[in-house]
Amino acid sequence: MLRTHTCGDLRIDNVGEEVILTGWVQRLRDKGGMLWIDLRDRYGITQLNFEEGHTDQTVLDAARNLGREYVIKATGKVIERFSKNDKIPTGDIEVKVTALEVLNPAKLPPFLIEDETDGGDDLRMKYRYLDLRRTPVRKNLELRHRMMRETRNYLDGLNFIEVETPVLIKSTPEGARDFVVPSRMNPGEFYALPQSPQTFKQLLMVSGFDRYFQIVKCFRDEDLRADRQPEFTQIDCEMAFITQEDILNTFEGFIRHLFKEVKGVTIEELPRMTYADAMKLYGSDKPDTRFGMQFVELNDVVKNKGFKVFDDAELVVGINAKGAAGYTRKQIDELTNFVKRPQVGATGLVYARVQEDGSVKSSVDKFYSPEDLQAWATALNAAPGDLILVLAGAADKTRKALNELRLEMGEQLGLRDKNVFSPLWVVDFPLLEWDEETNRYHAMHHPFTSPKPEDLALIKTDPGAIRANAYDMVINGVEVGGGSIRIYDRELQAQMFGLLGFTPEEAQNQFGFLMNAFEYGAPPHGGIAFGFDRLCSLFGGADSIRDFIAFPKNNSGRDVMIDAPSPIANVQLEELSIDVKKKA
Amino acid sequence: MLRTHTCGDLRIDNVGEEVILTGWVQRLRDKGGMLWIDLRDRYGITQLNFEEGHTDQTVLDAARNLGREYVIKATGKVIERFSKNDKIPTGDIEVKVTALEVLNPAKLPPFLIEDETDGGDDLRMKYRYLDLRRTPVRKNLELRHRMMRETRNYLDGLNFIEVETPVLIKSTPEGARDFVVPSRMNPGEFYALPQSPQTFKQLLMVSGFDRYFQIVKCFRDEDLRADRQPEFTQIDCEMAFITQEDILNTFEGFIRHLFKEVKGVTIEELPRMTYADAMKLYGSDKPDTRFGMQFVELNDVVKNKGFKVFDDAELVVGINAKGAAGYTRKQIDELTNFVKRPQVGATGLVYARVQEDGSVKSSVDKFYSPEDLQAWATALNAAPGDLILVLAGAADKTRKALNELRLEMGEQLGLRDKNVFSPLWVVDFPLLEWDEETNRYHAMHHPFTSPKPEDLALIKTDPGAIRANAYDMVINGVEVGGGSIRIYDRELQAQMFGLLGFTPEEAQNQFGFLMNAFEYGAPPHGGIAFGFDRLCSLFGGADSIRDFIAFPKNNSGRDVMIDAPSPIANVQLEELSIDVKKKA
Repeated sequence: MLRTHTCGDLRIDNVGEEVILTGWVQRLRDKGGMLWIDLRDRYGITQLNFEEGHTDQTVLDAARNLGREYVIKATGKVIERFSKNDKIPTGDIEVKVTALEVLNPAKLPPFLIEDETDGGDDLRMKYRYLDLRRTPVRKNLELRHRMMRETRNYLDGLNFIEVETPVLIKSTPEGARDFVVPSRMNPGEFYALPQSPQTFKQLLMVSGFDRYFQIVKCFRDEDLRADRQPEFTQIDCEMAFITQEDILNTFEGFIRHLFKEVKGVTIEELPRMTYADAMKLYGSDKPDTRFGMQFVELNDVVKNKGFKVFDDAELVVGINAKGAAGYTRKQIDELTNFVKRPQVGATGLVYARVQEDGSVKSSVDKFYSPEDLQAWATALNAAPGDLILVLAGAADKTRKALNELRLEMGEQLGLRDKNVFSPLWVVDFPLLEWDEETNRYHAMHHPFTSPKPEDLALIKTDPGAIRANAYDMVINGVEVGGGSIRIYDRELQAQMFGLLGFTPEEAQNQFGFLMNAFEYGAPPHGGIAFGFDRLCSLFGGADSIRDFIAFPKNNSGRDVMIDAPSPIANVQLEELSIDVKKKA
Repeated sequence: MLRTHTCGDLRIDNVGEEVILTGWVQRLRDKGGMLWIDLRDRYGITQLNFEEGHTDQTVLDAARNLGREYVIKATGKVIERFSKNDKIPTGDIEVKVTALEVLNPAKLPPFLIEDETDGGDDLRMKYRYLDLRRTPVRKNLELRHRMMRETRNYLDGLNFIEVETPVLIKSTPEGARDFVVPSRMNPGEFYALPQSPQTFKQLLMVSGFDRYFQIVKCFRDEDLRADRQPEFTQIDCEMAFITQEDILNTFEGFIRHLFKEVKGVTIEELPRMTYADAMKLYGSDKPDTRFGMQFVELNDVVKNKGFKVFDDAELVVGINAKGAAGYTRKQIDELTNFVKRPQVGATGLVYARVQEDGSVKSSVDKFYSPEDLQAWATALNAAPGDLILVLAGAADKTRKALNELRLEMGEQLGLRDKNVFSPLWVVDFPLLEWDEETNRYHAMHHPFTSPKPEDLALIKTDPGAIRANAYDMVINGVEVGGGSIRIYDRELQAQMFGLLGFTPEEAQNQFGFLMNAFEYGAPPHGGIAFGFDRLCSLFGGADSIRDFIAFPKNNSGRDVMIDAPSPIANVQLEELSIDVKKKA
């Protein structure tokens, strides 16, 4: 080693020792007679001390010539500090330097290597290797490492076996768009990168590996939204000879283990909510249950009083923003504008304040008597000081809009604390969802999800009403994981493909290997996959996943640091038997 | 759970318990009055017992209708066996079945699901999900899992942090051929799949993560030899603020840990051998040191005695096959044919037997006196009963050929025991190797490898003689890992690219991000990567890596189970702005 200790090691007990430290120059303070350097590495910061008259003059001169981010090797003696720094673990000591070597000089970095940097997003991404030197970013990756480790510890302890599934697989048009890889050895043919190891993990169940997991890269060639990456990491799991109950229990244990070991947070038993209830009470299949503010349906309370908007609405539904009666007209106008934005899509917002004296004052007083409004307050369990917010319209659309409003109110009222964690299971998802665009059913989870046996009879009459043995784990309004019990019967799987618009030939061509496998003794099985990047950002208390990925891509799918993707040589195209299309 | 126990759980202590088991029907023996089923899962085999007159008739009938590989659920009571089976851990007991449910029937598998199967390679790969049910294949994947776990335990314990590097990166023509991925969002541009995370791990060192590792998929689009896969797994490691000595010690500790924890084998300190010595003594940079039979150069001993073949040869070199003097003429003819095969490339083989009386009898007796031949025996330290084998010709070619002969003799003499492990370090590799075809230097390890400082002066005069700070770990003749100390200075890196035939523009275009990074404070660093598939097969005592990969590809890069690669839809090509070239 070039060093005897790291910059996080030395304590008062080391005083008197000769040490060698290496690291980066974080800061240099030159007070004339005294000069101090903060030397930084991954483990911490240690102060180096140089003193006019005591330190060798060449060493002192060398120190004065150092710049920020120079890589140096400093030899010296540990001494007790005159003025201690209780903010850092090495703050009791400093190293009186006797020899100094510049291992590598550094140009001035394009942004400050500090917790709060002056670098914008683009600059930080271009010089990601410098951005990663910053403590908050480094801590994110350290957190990620610990989460990986604890994931493996938990699952390994339960006899799960980690199996690597292939990355070069077969393109299947179902689901999102595949990234593909031309095969040189098989001209005109392509591999696809996996969107998930779904079929492989099911085959492993057919193989008898009854508890599988993998922390694995997956790929989706989608238009990227703010917080999506073309390559992302999943904790992928599958079990055989189980029921849904076993999976929920196993992975409830998993998340509790992670919270305990990584964050020291104890999580109680996870509540379970049906998809139907989640939609009814929160307008979302991923409710943020850190706060209540549940939806209350008001059709029975508000209709037939002459207010046409409510009378004509399929659904009138409200929330109680507790303690927000003091909202000003301006604030309420802003909320109205918020719900009317196209992304939210409501046509207007009705509100009612419960005053100090218990009376209720609404924006639609001319249609509703004080008694009518008391009935609103009763329905919403609103007390003096509370603000009732009501939306009306087509049921699904209105619930969706009220979900947005509820989250916004939660935000404004400080109810969405990043240090509070509220996980739950959402269960009993619909098997199918109707797609207006293509005029056919899509699989809500994926085509391998098992219908609930008791709903199977609906397959001919009302497929949209079939519930699936599918479940999501939701934490703080984020879907962190989802899974299902799988079909393991060839006939049912074929029927499912049929419902999804596959011809038997297409089904056989794309998924024949799986359906064939079901004929050779497939056990009942099911599983779950967690979005690992998202889980890390949630544990890290951040909104964006990007800072939990060492080398992320931007919204155009580019790595701006290495400048990828990029054109390739003609000889490469030639060998791959492909041409790049000329622009029209 | 559908079961109370696995098929590996039950012991004599469980006698009397009501249990539920699930699994696959391995074997059914029907003796009329009695019927036994071996029920199999990942954990073992448990015998089920059905008895005419005792077992319910419908259960008995159901049992009689079961076939091989049916998936069943059996409920019953654990009883002590009448005739015990000490070959399996559950052999003291059986389960007297009271209820039986077929969870899934099975067609007759296309090959036997037994340790020794009748399935050929093609059939096994097509039905890999059935092949994986076989105990030896399952044990391979279990071994792989344990090796992954112990790798992580060791490195995590030393403060290494696992960081996931990107899979969608940039194509670089240096090295092997890249797999590429067309970018839909950036028409005409391509990502490449990584051949290794080399540049990223170096950037992580620049970032200050001074101990990195990753167990990671890598990709090479090479023509596949018997035991290569287009996607393979590496244990990839890098350290900063270290010397070569630190890396050798750290990863010597790693391999000893793996042997200890996974195989219970204690490995002594690893010997170190220079590349020059390895070539001289074994004719290979990956010597199999499970046995001696080192090369002895005979130029001084054999020349100028009138034997033109030896007199004209650049190098005459021999090995002593101890105890092989009894080889028949036919056996020696076979060895001669072996060395004359084009893959080995020798022109002939000279041999000499040391007889019981100490006299030496050679195939070239007419040129050499008995005293001359005694000098051979002395040089080779050959005793009565030993067989001396000698090759002659151009030095490099002859060493290469004798290496093959030595390995063959080791095999024939039983000196290459799969249960003996002989690891060593080979160090001081040349920095460059001359490529006759392209008439230029290639990097022997890769372009980022640091020359030895003391050899740097040769860069202008004799680049081929420069030694690198590069090292391989070799076990039993297999290179399991290799690495180097890296360049961390922009100028030296630019010079290196120049030596390798890059123009400054090409170097900047392809590796500018790395050279730029070296200007912002890059620490001294180096690393190593282990071929994980190969390491697993070595630990498993197998020659092929294929059975240590869950879903391998064949020699044409095809996954015959899922039938990939395959043509993709025109709409996909359209979106990716590429065309498939028509065949000429």
